[in-house]
Amino acid sequence: MDIIGIARSIKPLDSGAQNRARTRQDSLTKPRGSLGRLEDLSIQLAGIYRTDAPKIRRKVIFTIAADHGVCAEGVSAYPSEVTAQMVLNFASGGAAINVLGKHVGAEIVAVDMGVASNLAWPSSIASMKVRKGTMNMAKGPAMTRLEAEEAIGNGIELVRKAVADGANLIGTGDMGIGNTTSATALTAVFTGRTVADVTGRGTGLDDEGLQKKIKVIEEVIRLHRPDPAKPLDVLQRVGGLEIAGMAGVIIGAASQSVPVILDGFISSSSALIAAGLAPESKSYMIASHRSVECGHRAILEYLGLEPILDLRMRLGEGTGAALAMNLVEASCKILNEMATFDSAGVSKTMEGE
Amino acid sequence: MDIIGIARSIKPLDSGAQNRARTRQDSLTKPRGSLGRLEDLSIQLAGIYRTDAPKIRRKVIFTIAADHGVCAEGVSAYPSEVTAQMVLNFASGGAAINVLGKHVGAEIVAVDMGVASNLAWPSSIASMKVRKGTMNMAKGPAMTRLEAEEAIGNGIELVRKAVADGANLIGTGDMGIGNTTSATALTAVFTGRTVADVTGRGTGLDDEGLQKKIKVIEEVIRLHRPDPAKPLDVLQRVGGLEIAGMAGVIIGAASQSVPVILDGFISSSSALIAAGLAPESKSYMIASHRSVECGHRAILEYLGLEPILDLRMRLGEGTGAALAMNLVEASCKILNEMATFDSAGVSKTMEGE
Repeated sequence: MDIIGIARSIKPLDSGAQNRARTRQDSLTKPRGSLGRLEDLSIQLAGIYRTDAPKIRRKVIFTIAADHGVCAEGVSAYPSEVTAQMVLNFASGGAAINVLGKHVGAEIVAVDMGVASNLAWPSSIASMKVRKGTMNMAKGPAMTRLEAEEAIGNGIELVRKAVADGANLIGTGDMGIGNTTSATALTAVFTGRTVADVTGRGTGLDDEGLQKKIKVIEEVIRLHRPDPAKPLDVLQRVGGLEIAGMAGVIIGAASQSVPVILDGFISSSSALIAAGLAPESKSYMIASHRSVECGHRAILEYLGLEPILDLRMRLGEGTGAALAMNLVEASCKILNEMATFDSAGVSKTMEGE
Repeated sequence: MDIIGIARSIKPLDSGAQNRARTRQDSLTKPRGSLGRLEDLSIQLAGIYRTDAPKIRRKVIFTIAADHGVCAEGVSAYPSEVTAQMVLNFASGGAAINVLGKHVGAEIVAVDMGVASNLAWPSSIASMKVRKGTMNMAKGPAMTRLEAEEAIGNGIELVRKAVADGANLIGTGDMGIGNTTSATALTAVFTGRTVADVTGRGTGLDDEGLQKKIKVIEEVIRLHRPDPAKPLDVLQRVGGLEIAGMAGVIIGAASQSVPVILDGFISSSSALIAAGLAPESKSYMIASHRSVECGHRAILEYLGLEPILDLRMRLGEGTGAALAMNLVEASCKILNEMATFDSAGVSKTMEGE
């Protein structure tokens, strides 16, 4: 797949549609700007969909799972087996993302992009395994260049199919024991912050575990000296297969003029790769929430994204994306369904000023 | 109606149900605490409903409208007629709260608690007019003691009927040109902050208008010297009829073990009255969002409430409450519908620690 070509095909937002949507927002029966972020979101969507009447039709969240060789260094509070166990939990509908997806009317597509397991998945799981978990990046590159490209291509392909089936709002989600270690390394590399500055407790490390994790990531970066100007190289060395897949989802969505809602820290680390390969993809991103993971704040600042929610969440799976979808959808309905000052016969003192 | 008796009947939350809900949250397939506020909300609801399996059945938002005599002092960017025009807009479904209520599946009950108009409303509007707008509080008390009590009683009655009809999640909302002036006076009186500290631009005042509004409110407080230890007296002197009605809604909901979601600044100013009359009612309050109005932050701090959303909104009507309802409902579903580590066969390394 011509990833670079697809990345380059992403168009800037349609400013004409955005201007028309802003004019309409200002004609609705409310003081100008009084719905804040909700108004801004509707304008962004107008620019993405290239219409002043953006409508959400079908919502899909890709919850992409993969394992991490770096777990051998003892960086996570949970064992690697949990990744596969959670994939089965996604299939049977018992995970948080299943409950929240159902709540907001979003379809959850759970994807095996690189789970270290031989299990035969139920048919509801999309099997796109690139390899059984990454290699241990503390010893060498996490994956080969071809594997990184394959995982990105898989992500692009996932979105392509979903959009062909009518989806026009995409969310990212992740599952992978050890993946905050990879996301933290990516964060340090792209934002230029120190590892200590951007390392959090993941699923629940204690103080000692946190110090160990910082050391491991510092060594990983010393070993690879990743160059942020070469995003594919960074991904290959210190990334993860679910992170590569989500980067593909983002690029795929943007290339098809579809907005993509980023979940939390891991999703946003994949946005660093996507933005590196396709700077224009940033206009298509919506940050769902601000995670407790301290590295997440650094990424959002670096990408210039303002999260919609701040609920002290740190679960991943796409749970923040699901909750934010409801608000994004609300923003479109406000734009499309409210009465105007004229149609409702409401005085608009402020208008002429 | 025995308002004080009802206020005193409010029970503390059920800590046993809260403990059982916390135990269940910790058994679900996610790292402990990883859903942050969503988990906390479910625990609060467990305590309010007195069960570890809280479920939202029917959601109702009361959008209570009234006019303000203090508008004669030129404190608002919009003319008083807009209150009645917006009530008609609520009736025909064209306002923001109609769109958002429909979006989250909440019924909107628009109430005339004191609109300064002789219009005969469509049947969908609940007519509980106490008087045609308050008197000008810059010249004397906004209303009589009996009127204040009648409006609170009306609010209690509204909730009583809704709960009898199956509602178990209530939201507050307001419409009343000039009501940020009243809410600001209440905020200064109860929180002890200076008027300048807590006065915002309402629907859209310019700098000059803002200075004038501050002066008017300072004079109002100098005239009445309201004593925060006497909440009914404060309400009568510097309150509003919709604010009194919402205070009744809060007390009514709490007295029936039903949670109440506060909208923005005006709703929260009514919570100051409710908390003054019934301190225990605070346990039943959920702050939906943090408004742009600077006084709102002061109230939330004073009441010890942490808002769920921060979307730079400042519309009122119950719009913030509507959006938050979706998240409150999500919190219950997480508690009730997720699989446990045991049922899903997921390893729980952290659990034994």
